[in-house]
Amino acid sequence: MKKTKTRNKRAHNPQATGLMSPNGTRFAEAAVCLAEIGKGFHARGWVLGTSGNFSAVISREPLRLAITSTGLDEQFLEMDEAANVVRGDGRPSAEALLHLAIVRGVDAGAVLHTHSVWSTILSGSHAAQGGIALEGYEMLKGLEGVRTHKHREWLPILENSQDMIELGEHVSKTLRESPGIHGFLLREHGLYTWGTGLQEAKRHVEILEFLMEVLVRSGAAQSA
Amino acid sequence: MKKTKTRNKRAHNPQATGLMSPNGTRFAEAAVCLAEIGKGFHARGWVLGTSGNFSAVISREPLRLAITSTGLDEQFLEMDEAANVVRGDGRPSAEALLHLAIVRGVDAGAVLHTHSVWSTILSGSHAAQGGIALEGYEMLKGLEGVRTHKHREWLPILENSQDMIELGEHVSKTLRESPGIHGFLLREHGLYTWGTGLQEAKRHVEILEFLMEVLVRSGAAQSA
Amino acid sequence: MKKTKTRNKRAHNPQATGLMSPNGTRFAEAAVCLAEIGKGFHARGWVLGTSGNFSAVISREPLRLAITSTGLDEQFLEMDEAANVVRGDGRPSAEALLHLAIVRGVDAGAVLHTHSVWSTILSGSHAAQGGIALEGYEMLKGLEGVRTHKHREWLPILENSQDMIELGEHVSKTLRESPGIHGFLLREHGLYTWGTGLQEAKRHVEILEFLMEVLVRSGAAQSA
Amino acid sequence: MKKTKTRNKRAHNPQATGLMSPNGTRFAEAAVCLAEIGKGFHARGWVLGTSGNFSAVISREPLRLAITSTGLDEQFLEMDEAANVVRGDGRPSAEALLHLAIVRGVDAGAVLHTHSVWSTILSGSHAAQGGIALEGYEMLKGLEGVRTHKHREWLPILENSQDMIELGEHVSKTLRESPGIHGFLLREHGLYTWGTGLQEAKRHVEILEFLMEVLVRSGAAQSA
Repeated sequence: MKKTKTRNKRAHNPQATGLMSPNGTRFAEAAVCLAEIGKGFHARGWVLGTSGNFSAVISREPLRLAITSTGLDEQFLEMDEAANVVRGDGRPSAEALLHLAIVRGVDAGAVLHTHSVWSTILSGSHAAQGGIALEGYEMLKGLEGVRTHKHREWLPILENSQDMIELGEHVSKTLRESPGIHGFLLREHGLYTWGTGLQEAKRHVEILEFLMEVLVRSGAAQSA
Repeated sequence: MKKTKTRNKRAHNPQATGLMSPNGTRFAEAAVCLAEIGKGFHARGWVLGTSGNFSAVISREPLRLAITSTGLDEQFLEMDEAANVVRGDGRPSAEALLHLAIVRGVDAGAVLHTHSVWSTILSGSHAAQGGIALEGYEMLKGLEGVRTHKHREWLPILENSQDMIELGEHVSKTLRESPGIHGFLLREHGLYTWGTGLQEAKRHVEILEFLMEVLVRSGAAQSA
Repeated sequence: MKKTKTRNKRAHNPQATGLMSPNGTRFAEAAVCLAEIGKGFHARGWVLGTSGNFSAVISREPLRLAITSTGLDEQFLEMDEAANVVRGDGRPSAEALLHLAIVRGVDAGAVLHTHSVWSTILSGSHAAQGGIALEGYEMLKGLEGVRTHKHREWLPILENSQDMIELGEHVSKTLRESPGIHGFLLREHGLYTWGTGLQEAKRHVEILEFLMEVLVRSGAAQSA
Repeated sequence: MKKTKTRNKRAHNPQATGLMSPNGTRFAEAAVCLAEIGKGFHARGWVLGTSGNFSAVISREPLRLAITSTGLDEQFLEMDEAANVVRGDGRPSAEALLHLAIVRGVDAGAVLHTHSVWSTILSGSHAAQGGIALEGYEMLKGLEGVRTHKHREWLPILENSQDMIELGEHVSKTLRESPGIHGFLLREHGLYTWGTGLQEAKRHVEILEFLMEVLVRSGAAQSA
């Protein structure tokens, strides 16, 4: 009787039926963390209307990412280095190519895209300058590798586009030409930032969103 | 003894006594979703003071809507195409006729009315222009059928009124004359938006509220 | 054995030992509701730093109020018509005399005092005018007895004072001279509003706080 | 068998192995309270990006503080009067010397550092004046020892620095020269405040953050 029970259990348990390869486990863990992060961002109004997308590298060789399913902020699938789905249903977020460009360009382990009121306003008001300079703020020290508030962080603004191949190349070019940046904005679209892991990437979101809020509330958008 | 218990249970269980017709089930499910959506909107300050009202179509032939009970944001009743109550106690929200006008005018499956600080300000500051143009924002792509941030969304502003028959006709006229819109404002009153289902309507609320917040924080209300 | 257990239970149960008179029950119910309302207001930032105080009438003859204990937003005691404590420990909130003046002046069943950023700003910027006029907003219809957005609501501003006897008389005078008002402000201090019961009073807080937020965000404080 | 189980349990239970000295208990209790306070502040956006740090005195002779572990807002360790770790893993927050300077300078029992948008803006806009005057606000009465809204609170602004020894001396000097203050700002960095215990310190955070928000929303940062 006990044995039968166990067998039944196995039949409904992906782990027991061998589905849980190391990648499978990493995917499942990443999906839980990504969903948790997305829920917190949604509560803060940073990814309203399914406007955010999030990814985490779960394998380097071959490259595999857990990434937001298109139009579903809290559902994830696994994709390969060509944005083909290898686990889960649906299509990856339209911005999948940008995530791949970032993972390759800066060797990131996680990429987070938020779409806040602050980044929407500033990326519009400062588009002509090509970016926003953040300087003198203690909060900058939370960015990986930054040691003093005297640091000057450049947050490039890229023209928005619906051509993801073109935009992905633009992202790659920006990452090559501006080494050391921690994020960039797409015009009237939002923020991309990253980290070696999800916690670092999440910290970068909080810091950059905070500093953009400071700028808007200081009147920077009006005087740009 | 066991049987008696079961019978007693049935007596208090609408499902067991046959009350749960297909419409009854759909009504119950819609009421749960509407309450959940309302609770989230209330937390964001979008429907303070029982100022919101929400509906979902649960049958087309004959037309039946689950709709907010007047003055009670989290209680719902079922009404027919003439706003008569066919299930539940109380009266439907005073704006029931607007919900019916929208359901008929654009074949919506759900209608949501929020009453935020942002829509109150903008519908006052832009009343003379008759509406607000939203253009260039990536967030627009979350509106059903929109494919590019270059889309120009027109958000008409209707004069507010306590005469719901007159206002309902005004809404019908607006929907006929501005095909393709995803919502409209009542002056110093708030936003109406809709969708084929509740999730789409909720997404439209988040997107339009977000874009109105962007406009107010960008100084649009002052420069109108 | 079972009997002993029951007896022990009773010994620790105020209800079983006769402490729960009708007033005791009403006090306990009011305290739960007041705490719930206070918690929600605190989350919205309307009563930071134990700056709010709340009361509910639990008996008219003789007059008894459940009211916030001084310095403890979520603890309550029962006081009589002279602000003497008749149940619970501690002292009633310093503003107890204002609650009593309101309960007597407008026959209110509940009085809520919030202390938001919005009321602090507006009561300072508009002090010279003696009050704030709210007109044209649909949200006004949520105030008891108001039927149209064309209603003009006058929100008087009283000079702040630490002399509660003097301030209580000022409140009584204001209520006599401005019949029909739904609340008033103390200068750079906050909002007092009320209702026949707690739900109505809570709705009035949400509506008046909302409208003050609209005014500040519209630039009213700068142009006063 | 049962005995073995108990012994195993003990081996992993600090309480059973005698680790729970009076200090150990006080540390554990302080850590729970500090974590709870930090979580609430994070929800309000006052300590984004692990930018906050919190401490509570758990013993005076010898001096022992529970304090935030560097980079981990919700993890705590115990340190002595020279900022050496005496319990827990990791290093204390880089600002440990400031906490010690405050505990010694004003005999505080708890020190809280928040890093809000409001304090970041105001400490920048008012740096040239050397501080911010808060006067006329009822909310001031929530500061320990303040009896009237007519009180004038001076909130000094110190130049930010990464040299914690220098900054600690600057803090000590400020506390000597401005007796009676309840907090100070570090330029474009944030607020430090304190109390005889954690609840008082938390109340001071809420009050000072509230008043800074009032100033920014009143336009004080633009007119400084």
